[in-house]
Amino acid sequence: MPDTIVMKFGGTSVADAERIKRAASRIVKQREAGRRVVAVLSARGKTTDELIAMAEEVSPRPDPREMDMLLSTGERISCALCAMAINDLGHRAISLTGSQAGIVTDTSHTKARIIDVRADRIRQALDDDLIVLVAGFQGVSTSRDVTTLGRGGSDTTAVALAAAIGAEVCEIYTDVAGVFSADPRVVPTARKLPQVSFEEMLEMAASGAKVLQLRSVEYARTHGVRLHCRSSFEESPGTVVIGEDETMEHPLITAVTHSTEEARITLTGVPDRPGVAAAIFRALADANCNVDTIIQNEPREEGRDAEVSFTIASEDLRAAERALEPIRAELGIAAIDTDPEIGKVSIIGAGMRSHPGVAAQVFETLATREINIEMISTSPIKISCVIRSEAVPEAVQALHEAFELSLAEVQRERPIGQEAR
Amino acid sequence: MPDTIVMKFGGTSVADAERIKRAASRIVKQREAGRRVVAVLSARGKTTDELIAMAEEVSPRPDPREMDMLLSTGERISCALCAMAINDLGHRAISLTGSQAGIVTDTSHTKARIIDVRADRIRQALDDDLIVLVAGFQGVSTSRDVTTLGRGGSDTTAVALAAAIGAEVCEIYTDVAGVFSADPRVVPTARKLPQVSFEEMLEMAASGAKVLQLRSVEYARTHGVRLHCRSSFEESPGTVVIGEDETMEHPLITAVTHSTEEARITLTGVPDRPGVAAAIFRALADANCNVDTIIQNEPREEGRDAEVSFTIASEDLRAAERALEPIRAELGIAAIDTDPEIGKVSIIGAGMRSHPGVAAQVFETLATREINIEMISTSPIKISCVIRSEAVPEAVQALHEAFELSLAEVQRERPIGQEAR
Repeated sequence: MPDTIVMKFGGTSVADAERIKRAASRIVKQREAGRRVVAVLSARGKTTDELIAMAEEVSPRPDPREMDMLLSTGERISCALCAMAINDLGHRAISLTGSQAGIVTDTSHTKARIIDVRADRIRQALDDDLIVLVAGFQGVSTSRDVTTLGRGGSDTTAVALAAAIGAEVCEIYTDVAGVFSADPRVVPTARKLPQVSFEEMLEMAASGAKVLQLRSVEYARTHGVRLHCRSSFEESPGTVVIGEDETMEHPLITAVTHSTEEARITLTGVPDRPGVAAAIFRALADANCNVDTIIQNEPREEGRDAEVSFTIASEDLRAAERALEPIRAELGIAAIDTDPEIGKVSIIGAGMRSHPGVAAQVFETLATREINIEMISTSPIKISCVIRSEAVPEAVQALHEAFELSLAEVQRERPIGQEAR
Repeated sequence: MPDTIVMKFGGTSVADAERIKRAASRIVKQREAGRRVVAVLSARGKTTDELIAMAEEVSPRPDPREMDMLLSTGERISCALCAMAINDLGHRAISLTGSQAGIVTDTSHTKARIIDVRADRIRQALDDDLIVLVAGFQGVSTSRDVTTLGRGGSDTTAVALAAAIGAEVCEIYTDVAGVFSADPRVVPTARKLPQVSFEEMLEMAASGAKVLQLRSVEYARTHGVRLHCRSSFEESPGTVVIGEDETMEHPLITAVTHSTEEARITLTGVPDRPGVAAAIFRALADANCNVDTIIQNEPREEGRDAEVSFTIASEDLRAAERALEPIRAELGIAAIDTDPEIGKVSIIGAGMRSHPGVAAQVFETLATREINIEMISTSPIKISCVIRSEAVPEAVQALHEAFELSLAEVQRERPIGQEAR
């Protein structure tokens, strides 16, 4: 049986008639190379924003089930148009809704989780020699309602289908050429990475790299789906995300990522007794605020109050404040301070596991530039520093230079001292 | 069990957020009056035109299956938005696609026919005390593809659902207040008709009245669904369409209808042998041209050629010419002449069945105004005259006046001479 591939095109790649035709010809090219193709499409450019604006015009708090019915139309429009374009190129294409494609989800409207993929209809269509286009970001719930998968949903649709039909690769087409050693807008000498491991990609997605959604990378890792991030607008290969056991090279540092849209909340005078922290973060979770770095200063003396500090996405700041207000009174917390001007810079690399010197070099590099580190968090393959948001570009450039990430050949397994010069 | 009603809102009635909220409150008012409500919605104002324009930008001849996938999104958007608005009014609403509502069609994409209505899900939702909103104009085919019902499709959806769930009435909300004795833009004294029979409504729809689509009226008559055409923008009752046996009154003449968008095609030198007319009209039918009035002049002498003349909608003129060109050569027809400036005026009334004098009065009325009648066609309850399109407004006014249709009380069963003065 010929290879099967899944190709996913994001919103900017199908934003107008010309781009839809370009996507169609990319799809047809793969078909003509003898592959069976399933393509997952997002809504065109601003379609989703327009639909949300319509809903907000009608209702102050749109019903989630109806929001899903509304938003799911955008991807269907993209797919129908692309199918037309493919048919004009002399190939036969069929567009399927998430439901027709067999994407079965739970009933959590606007943020449904995929619980099953019944891909019989896709398999049948592929056997009938059709190119299959699937509306991304959506599914059908166990109670037969249309659901949407939330942020990054179309990537998740693509990965889930690739897993279900056993595709050789899931290609993610976007307006960037792949995964870079840093954001090229901040570091012009950043290099495109030919490959990264799932672990690295997860850390990068979690720490500000926007090319792939965290959730789809997790799904791909769990189900062993090979991801290939590449550009819709050029032919050259992008970045392949692979299992760590597959990679021959173990770069010490792969990339520097950053984020400037963070905020910090500091709670002072927090009573030092069990359950307080749990109550605080339960309230935030219930308000759908994703907490990133957390620091708690234990009081030096028994019975004194503690201080808890954490970062969240800027867009969640108001929701977090609203969620904490009742908790404050209830627990007797002295004060809640917020700081919206927070940024984060992270260095990521599977090779740092065995090189404890990396952290020291990060701190030295930032210190040399007189950039103050406000919070630190680490994982085995990542070091993140919370800093003032205005210092982020300089910090990224300094770290990218310090770890020599612009070099054509990535450093391999050399002692930390050698490359730190 | 409380009464169940179906309410259908057309495109202008859901064109923007304000109108959607107004439709929502009309629906809620019926619910609060104790009725179970199923509402069928069309796409918002220009949505369908915009979607068609998108398709044409991508493909010169869009694939019909994909066209249906594309166009069906418009009604879903209307339904989702209206459901949100109803939820805000403190009632619970659920929107359903044509497929979810159980509208099963054949596989004729872009002009599918309804072959079954499996309304279990609607019934269940009504039993659960929900207001049910259904996306009009669409269904799911026996091969599980999304289909659309073609022109007038949302009216047909509404009538089909009313029949399936045994609704007391199917209310059709539009931007006009009901069915009038003539187009009020042409005849300012035209009166709103409190009721018309199915037969009259069918003739009116077929002869230019745009308030209801022919097809939905046929469906309603076949399945005994009571129709009520009324305004979305005012509260007063509109026009009820009922079985002839139900009506106590038998007006001689109910209304004058007209159309100015007609064209005439005249074939001269048509060979006088069996099968020729069949070949001509088969070619037109295959090109989807709906032929209206047909006149054939038999040759006076054996073996001489005949002349065939017929009218069609102006928009079909070019398609008809293209369809006839090969037929002309094949059959040896001398010439094809076209006249795009054709109009039609018709008078309709169930009471005229027993009054042969009506036709004479129509011709006299037009003769007095020196309006030349080019073709005539009749049914038991209709007389249509094909005239120059520029003469149509004057002809409508003259006939409306001659048959005294502005009177508050419609004439009943009187001898023709009495009202013809």
